[in-house]
Amino acid sequence: MKPHLLLLLLLHFTLPTTLLLLLPTATMPKPPFSLSLALSLTLAALLSSSPESRRLPFLRKPFHKTQNNLTPNNYTYEIRYFQQTLDHFTFQNLPKFPQRYLINTHHWLGPSRMAPIFLYCGNEGDIEWFAANTGFVWDLAPLFGAMVIFPEHRYYGESMPYGSWDEAYKNASTLAHLTAEQALADFAVLITDLKRNLSAEASPVILFGGSYGGMLAAWMRLKYPHIAIGSLASSAPILQFEDIVPLETFYNIVSNDFRRESTSCFNTIKKSWDVITSVGRKVNGLDHLAKTFHLCGKLESSDDLFDWLESAYSDLAMVDYPYPTEFLMPLPAYPIKEVCKKIDNSAEGTNVLDRIFKGVSVYYNYTGKAECFELDDDPHGMSGWDWQACTEMVMPMSSSKNSSMFPEWEYNYTSYAEECRNEFGVTPRPTWITTEFGGHNYKSVFGTFGSNIIFSNGLLDPWSGGSVKENISDSIIALVTKEGAHHLDLRAATADDPDWLVEQRASEVKLMKGWIDEYHTTKKAVFNM
Amino acid sequence: MKPHLLLLLLLHFTLPTTLLLLLPTATMPKPPFSLSLALSLTLAALLSSSPESRRLPFLRKPFHKTQNNLTPNNYTYEIRYFQQTLDHFTFQNLPKFPQRYLINTHHWLGPSRMAPIFLYCGNEGDIEWFAANTGFVWDLAPLFGAMVIFPEHRYYGESMPYGSWDEAYKNASTLAHLTAEQALADFAVLITDLKRNLSAEASPVILFGGSYGGMLAAWMRLKYPHIAIGSLASSAPILQFEDIVPLETFYNIVSNDFRRESTSCFNTIKKSWDVITSVGRKVNGLDHLAKTFHLCGKLESSDDLFDWLESAYSDLAMVDYPYPTEFLMPLPAYPIKEVCKKIDNSAEGTNVLDRIFKGVSVYYNYTGKAECFELDDDPHGMSGWDWQACTEMVMPMSSSKNSSMFPEWEYNYTSYAEECRNEFGVTPRPTWITTEFGGHNYKSVFGTFGSNIIFSNGLLDPWSGGSVKENISDSIIALVTKEGAHHLDLRAATADDPDWLVEQRASEVKLMKGWIDEYHTTKKAVFNM
Repeated sequence: MKPHLLLLLLLHFTLPTTLLLLLPTATMPKPPFSLSLALSLTLAALLSSSPESRRLPFLRKPFHKTQNNLTPNNYTYEIRYFQQTLDHFTFQNLPKFPQRYLINTHHWLGPSRMAPIFLYCGNEGDIEWFAANTGFVWDLAPLFGAMVIFPEHRYYGESMPYGSWDEAYKNASTLAHLTAEQALADFAVLITDLKRNLSAEASPVILFGGSYGGMLAAWMRLKYPHIAIGSLASSAPILQFEDIVPLETFYNIVSNDFRRESTSCFNTIKKSWDVITSVGRKVNGLDHLAKTFHLCGKLESSDDLFDWLESAYSDLAMVDYPYPTEFLMPLPAYPIKEVCKKIDNSAEGTNVLDRIFKGVSVYYNYTGKAECFELDDDPHGMSGWDWQACTEMVMPMSSSKNSSMFPEWEYNYTSYAEECRNEFGVTPRPTWITTEFGGHNYKSVFGTFGSNIIFSNGLLDPWSGGSVKENISDSIIALVTKEGAHHLDLRAATADDPDWLVEQRASEVKLMKGWIDEYHTTKKAVFNM
Repeated sequence: MKPHLLLLLLLHFTLPTTLLLLLPTATMPKPPFSLSLALSLTLAALLSSSPESRRLPFLRKPFHKTQNNLTPNNYTYEIRYFQQTLDHFTFQNLPKFPQRYLINTHHWLGPSRMAPIFLYCGNEGDIEWFAANTGFVWDLAPLFGAMVIFPEHRYYGESMPYGSWDEAYKNASTLAHLTAEQALADFAVLITDLKRNLSAEASPVILFGGSYGGMLAAWMRLKYPHIAIGSLASSAPILQFEDIVPLETFYNIVSNDFRRESTSCFNTIKKSWDVITSVGRKVNGLDHLAKTFHLCGKLESSDDLFDWLESAYSDLAMVDYPYPTEFLMPLPAYPIKEVCKKIDNSAEGTNVLDRIFKGVSVYYNYTGKAECFELDDDPHGMSGWDWQACTEMVMPMSSSKNSSMFPEWEYNYTSYAEECRNEFGVTPRPTWITTEFGGHNYKSVFGTFGSNIIFSNGLLDPWSGGSVKENISDSIIALVTKEGAHHLDLRAATADDPDWLVEQRASEVKLMKGWIDEYHTTKKAVFNM
């Protein structure tokens, strides 16, 4: 397993290509994903021809030229910029920065009716991409007579401190203010200002978010209950810190997604790592591997191939959706089933490596258009999520020898921190998130304190392992779907939605309606939607 | 009225002398108090002969040499230092600083019994002084088998970033991290680390605090419910922001404290300002005033006399206690009654100024030992609380023409901000505190979200005007005493305590016991005190 910096994909709406930015090697586990940074950087490149694009990580997947097709911008909004405070918690003489936000008031019934405001907690990427892929919020706006706001997360998309990506990402000192706490305060200040300007102080705010954005939505409801009356936190792994959940959870869920389709598929994958290592060590072995896996260039190390395969498996687990999607890649319904069919049903005598190649081709080349695959990466790329993972978003993960189909890996904080110091000159604070937001004993703490949060999860999603999957109180509700994957509920409704997804969304609507009704009752106001 | 920077006394345990640090003149209202900064600076001087003392504000009261007598250090504790993160919310490469804390585990029944931890939220002064004057916590520790911790607030006492007071208070850049949010995070990090080291993660924490410390205690319970199970927030004016309470509240309460004793007393004081102004404008008028009020030095301006009188009246309202105290000054029980007796009962024909002098002498010279009074101040003093008031602790106050006995004053944010820019090079964020901690619509927000907070107040205390004085829910309780003043409940029990004070404290104990019992029930643990 090629060890390098743990990058976490908390991004839920992303590009058709899986983009991996790989940091310099160290004694680190394979990153489950690193789409987040790729998204922000790639979109920056797509949206501008500014010097930022020079810093883009190399795109290692074959489809990157088709990305422009994947902005299904069916939703209309105004783009605005708010002069945002860079450091809310100190009073240094720092320049403000333009926080971009998207706003649509078309369906909003206005302040006199205390009509609600739906705020999507922008996460680690371009906010227009999130807006384009969070159809659920747009679907709901007319039903609720709601205003829709998508504020962008600082240091992503166009919301750059210090005037540009280059300046914002220059070094640890300029990146210092890229934290979740500052992002939450951004949302709080922005919405407070906006409501004041609209005389809409009495309009209740409901927060939405998926993945890291879901974590922000949940934390925001906990920390700023006066700002928002409730949150839908979809696939939000707020418990993926320290030892709150078993460190093997993530990779075990990925592995189980494969095992549930086929034990032999699981076993073939589990066996393949040793085969790759063994072949790679032979004379011309790397060339043989490159040929087997149709790589466009030379293979420098078996580790690079490990990365490529691992990210396919993990991504497949996230997007193991019940209908065809182009979410991460163009894929069939329940793509893992298809991958395992290829692995299992190859002609008798087909060797392990050929089976694996046929399997992952479902992921990397479902359209059949790719002639070869690039594994290149940019060892010098710096990304927002890398920074966040190296400061406060320290999410320990291991791969268990027995229950995981991945190579065994034991989490090692010491080497993780060392890597962060090397990469950014920063030392992580691995216990800060739980100190600031809680997590240990979350059931009793949230249960007696928090309210009006929906934690939605699909059990196929490896991030569900670090999420809240049980009701904590009457108003902190877990909506779990056995067949769901990574925050499918936030996407627009389609004709292909299975009943359980329709029901999940209906439950969410009912709960949100309840929050608003309760709010209006408290306000003794009449509000007819 | 001499207008200068609004300084707020949120300090509840202070010196026997009233110390005023006056900032350069500007178009600002009279500060109700400025003891806070004086305390920290004075104690720094008393406790060390370091260069810091050179920055001390001039002590304008006659008893400052007796301060050493006023450390009734009856409580034993160990003094420790925690290497604290200077900026919790960003990842700049800043030096840690030694946060001092006092700890006593003598009565603690230990982690195996999940015995509680009582944490006093250190506010704007030396923590040893708070420890010495928060007898209630010490009284309760053996009853609850509790550990007692008094962490010091950053930038006060010995808890100085950058190695020294001089360095920490050098300029706006070094003062930048003196905020309430950072202080709360300090407490959270400290207690989390301490509990981990003691394997006492399961021990519930109860927070205590008075005045600004009470605000911190309340906010900490709201923002860090996973850290503390409940808070006793005594005389905590968390609503004294923006326009949540009428701006005239503070001065009206002071005024009413005098009027309830005697209408003629109130009227004499109300009349006196014009008399002083009029006399001061005459030839040798300032000399005449200086002689009348037994000032040691020359009177430069009537405004200086205004300040001196106003602070006496406001302080008297805070310490209008039912038994003799040496809290701010050595004083009789219900000192306002005594002041008004002197004002009202002077021989017929005594003029207004002589009456006023006799009245305030009860405050400034109850022991009769002062031969003259100093009004000096240090126009260049920088203090922690001044900084806080110029950044986030913007508490608007006016003095109403009709209902206040003070000169009329209308709050003017523009000039307030201008003064802050002149003094510190910093612009306040007057709406930040309510954005971060709430305040508007606090009843519905706290009621549906918060829990386990006691807001205790005495209605004679002018700070009660900005405090929570009604029950908000079953577990957010207001304990209001008609005859109480500034957080009397936090002081040690005495034989002179009136019944209503004994009852107030008993209610507090009962509620805290309820929190702990509920916590232990939740934890399914047996705990016998």
